[in-house]
Amino acid sequence: MSKGGESTFIVRSSEIDFRGQVTLPVLVSYLQEAAWDNTTTLGISMYDLLEKGLTWVLSRLRIEMFRYPKHRDQVMVETWASGREKVFLHRDFRIYNAERELLGQATSVWLVMDVVKRQLTSVPDFITAVEIATGYEPLPFAKGKLPALAEAAFEQHVQVKWHDIDLNRHVNNTHYLRWALEALPIEVLEQQQLREADIIFRSESTLGDTIVSLAAPTEPGLYLHKLADEATGKELVQAQTKWK
Amino acid sequence: MSKGGESTFIVRSSEIDFRGQVTLPVLVSYLQEAAWDNTTTLGISMYDLLEKGLTWVLSRLRIEMFRYPKHRDQVMVETWASGREKVFLHRDFRIYNAERELLGQATSVWLVMDVVKRQLTSVPDFITAVEIATGYEPLPFAKGKLPALAEAAFEQHVQVKWHDIDLNRHVNNTHYLRWALEALPIEVLEQQQLREADIIFRSESTLGDTIVSLAAPTEPGLYLHKLADEATGKELVQAQTKWK
Repeated sequence: MSKGGESTFIVRSSEIDFRGQVTLPVLVSYLQEAAWDNTTTLGISMYDLLEKGLTWVLSRLRIEMFRYPKHRDQVMVETWASGREKVFLHRDFRIYNAERELLGQATSVWLVMDVVKRQLTSVPDFITAVEIATGYEPLPFAKGKLPALAEAAFEQHVQVKWHDIDLNRHVNNTHYLRWALEALPIEVLEQQQLREADIIFRSESTLGDTIVSLAAPTEPGLYLHKLADEATGKELVQAQTKWK
Repeated sequence: MSKGGESTFIVRSSEIDFRGQVTLPVLVSYLQEAAWDNTTTLGISMYDLLEKGLTWVLSRLRIEMFRYPKHRDQVMVETWASGREKVFLHRDFRIYNAERELLGQATSVWLVMDVVKRQLTSVPDFITAVEIATGYEPLPFAKGKLPALAEAAFEQHVQVKWHDIDLNRHVNNTHYLRWALEALPIEVLEQQQLREADIIFRSESTLGDTIVSLAAPTEPGLYLHKLADEATGKELVQAQTKWK
């Protein structure tokens, strides 16, 4: 039985919006870091994988927020390996405040990639040896396809810049969510609360790429998003966001 | 005598470049947060000022880095009110690692602004009542003008987006530094180490503004930067960066 972990963050002034609430891309960076902390404890962090010519690839993330923490609030992110289905490794998250109230929760799906071949690989033994954590109330997996975006109502073009690039020389996942959200009209971002984001990561992008961020409403409070490479048209990210 | 303060940060995977080093805009966000923590203790935080219809305005920041912390490193930022010259309030910073080695240092100059009139005001009594911290080895102030950028060698246009905006509905200062650096050629960013940045903040910008980021080398390893509003030509930020 593996163990879950918990990481603590304090919301910074550079991480909040005009309402004083931490933004969702920042919360996703907290989840990423909590996952890194827990996998370090388990000996299966990205650094452990890189030593073996492998790396983690985030395939899907669904996050629901019930309440947003504010500047200077303490945020606890609990995370654990929650399941495995063939090559898909599941990791769940619960987000608490200092009073141990549940602020949000998330599920995620990860794959293992061969760094040299740049292709997905079967899950190696040293990862399957780390059993799934028990004793955690399970969250429902994000399953099924997201509907395809038929016609874009909103469009933004974004150039990948130096500070968007991470250790692997690829765009850090948190930026895709930021660019997806920023394609929406200001009125949505200003007047509504983002309650849920379901994000499927399909392909990578790197420095100098130009990305088209498309979005369209499908029903009240529901938006579909698509990020694609401007030059090749290749789909990078598909997402759905729910607002209240 | 007022007291200095110290705040601790742990470098996240979303805060590093491809070398694994924390980026300078992220370090500046650590300094901002450490200043917020210390001014909160002193009863003169931005929230304390806003209650009186006032706010802090960062006028100049000069930061020198001797060594960059890496992912998962603990970073301690020590900060104290270091001096006062008429309406200019000085605040210094020293940046340490867990072994208490000095990684970098910074000086900054702050002004007080009347939020309603949107103009600078004399330093109110409740701020001057907080005496300058003693017992700290002083850092040399950033003084004098920066040379004007005569002719731009590099130019980028950036649109201010939702996630760049902070509590005051203005661009958070850390983003100006990011945009200044991103105007430089990739070779500089990839192959050289940023050793020093001296940034003068002249004017604010807000959502929807387009900003022109200009830069030019003046001597080997030295660049001048200018950020201006594309529509009005108004200068927002002037900066100088040193590289090794």
